[in-house]
Amino acid sequence: MGTVVALAAQVGGAKLADGLYRLRGKDLTVIVNTGDDYEHLGLSFSPDLDTLIYTLAGIADAAAGWEPEGETRAVHASLKSLGGPDRPLLGDKSLAMALLRSHGLANERSLTEVTAEFCHRLGIAARVLPMSDDPVRTHVLTEQGAIPFPEYFTTMACEPAVRGFQYAGAEEARLSDAALDALHARNLEAVVICPANPYHAIRPILETGGMRDLLRKRGVPVIAVTPVVGGKALRGSAGKMMRELGKEPSARAVATEYLRIIHGFVIDQEDIAFAQSVRALGLQVAAANTIMRTIDDRVALARAVLDFAGAIRERNLAEAQ
Amino acid sequence: MGTVVALAAQVGGAKLADGLYRLRGKDLTVIVNTGDDYEHLGLSFSPDLDTLIYTLAGIADAAAGWEPEGETRAVHASLKSLGGPDRPLLGDKSLAMALLRSHGLANERSLTEVTAEFCHRLGIAARVLPMSDDPVRTHVLTEQGAIPFPEYFTTMACEPAVRGFQYAGAEEARLSDAALDALHARNLEAVVICPANPYHAIRPILETGGMRDLLRKRGVPVIAVTPVVGGKALRGSAGKMMRELGKEPSARAVATEYLRIIHGFVIDQEDIAFAQSVRALGLQVAAANTIMRTIDDRVALARAVLDFAGAIRERNLAEAQ
Repeated sequence: MGTVVALAAQVGGAKLADGLYRLRGKDLTVIVNTGDDYEHLGLSFSPDLDTLIYTLAGIADAAAGWEPEGETRAVHASLKSLGGPDRPLLGDKSLAMALLRSHGLANERSLTEVTAEFCHRLGIAARVLPMSDDPVRTHVLTEQGAIPFPEYFTTMACEPAVRGFQYAGAEEARLSDAALDALHARNLEAVVICPANPYHAIRPILETGGMRDLLRKRGVPVIAVTPVVGGKALRGSAGKMMRELGKEPSARAVATEYLRIIHGFVIDQEDIAFAQSVRALGLQVAAANTIMRTIDDRVALARAVLDFAGAIRERNLAEAQ
Repeated sequence: MGTVVALAAQVGGAKLADGLYRLRGKDLTVIVNTGDDYEHLGLSFSPDLDTLIYTLAGIADAAAGWEPEGETRAVHASLKSLGGPDRPLLGDKSLAMALLRSHGLANERSLTEVTAEFCHRLGIAARVLPMSDDPVRTHVLTEQGAIPFPEYFTTMACEPAVRGFQYAGAEEARLSDAALDALHARNLEAVVICPANPYHAIRPILETGGMRDLLRKRGVPVIAVTPVVGGKALRGSAGKMMRELGKEPSARAVATEYLRIIHGFVIDQEDIAFAQSVRALGLQVAAANTIMRTIDDRVALARAVLDFAGAIRERNLAEAQ
């Protein structure tokens, strides 16, 4: 078996990454969105990296998957009593991660190194990598101007209508050496774009440091999994954003975001009726249960994705002969 | 009634400051040692300021007076699980204070301003002031060289023998405008040196920005209260340090540290036998219960100190006529 690279963000993305991890262990590399990283009280927060780490370490909260289980808010309560900010709502465990991350970065360690240390301490065998050690910041374009994503998400509760997105710093940012190594690995078997908001979770990764071109030219199957089932995003604001961008929320609309990058697209089994419309985009299509309620669901979806990639690879080999 | 300035640090100092506060409210200014401030994980910790704030706000822990009551260690436990440092032992509430302090300092607010904001939020009417907004750092001179006090105290558990002390930055540091205002107030009635280790709690204040000279010339009674009773420091390492510095641990040894600054010295009622030896230094002496077990004890000692200062003032006036 070869190696696998997953591009991931958010809880849904972390769940599929976990399924892949349970199948492939150390042969999995997860490249994670850092476009919604932010500074708060002078500390560096990386919400998507945190979500991936908690999930792969098996300590993510069952209900609030972006937080560790048993999260508490002692520091936040004290901050408020001292006149500190009310938002974002800080968890004590998340704060510990932000403290060590900030301290590491201030001492000239890279985000990649700090993240690797967390994974080591929490017993994660897979490599979890920020997409870049350089800052990339996603902005939501609205009638009120360009708003940093964390502010749009937290303070504005995603209310202002979306006109577009900007990924500040993405073009100049370098993919890290570790990410490039994983993508250029000789025995790379597939790249999996995990189910997550295509605009602010996955596109920042694709826009960073030439990732889009690299995937196009890499010559291994690139498979994306839909975050939209039955015309609705499983969670979050993807559906709302699609409507505001003038698109009908559907698996097909997600697939169009990844055209010329992916070879295969996984729709939910409930959306089998839409398979033809996605095939019409020139993509291979597979259907699976993409709603990951249990650990078994994660593993089953991961297996379906890897089998799909294997089938595409074999077909390509057959066609090449 | 006039105003009162207290120089304070540590739990004993905070208790007497609290007694003075309960008598004088907003007419009290407490100037606090910052010589044992330190940076940890990139955050600014001010242990003596914190102790004073918790105590005057009435939220200090009854047993561990340097901490707020109900302190928890959620962040510390998470830091450890992520490979973070084991020491110093961080409390969640203390961490909230350090976070806001560090954030304020990074945004060009002064330590005086940040401290005033904490006092305002916690309903403290007295002014609690760092001795300076400039950095002063106490070092313990030992056979192993000069060791920053926080390290000597925490990592080394005060074990290496003391040869002396250095107060790095003290000479260049400016007393803050607020401290100078309080010391120059026209109706200033007394300056009280609260019971605390003379070497690393009080002397940093005296060495900073000309405080020693200012007190000598100010012309109001300066009263010190002993931290040593019956040849033993009430808590902490004052006794040990005195022995290592070749002095017999006693109230008299403390009084000699403050010669040419103070006019009166308060010994414990148990040490009444030593009164004459202190008087022989040229000081007025009063005896009182200096062991503050209850709030009433704090107030009673504060009243005794202020009465003593009043008596000295009246005698000086009588002599001047």
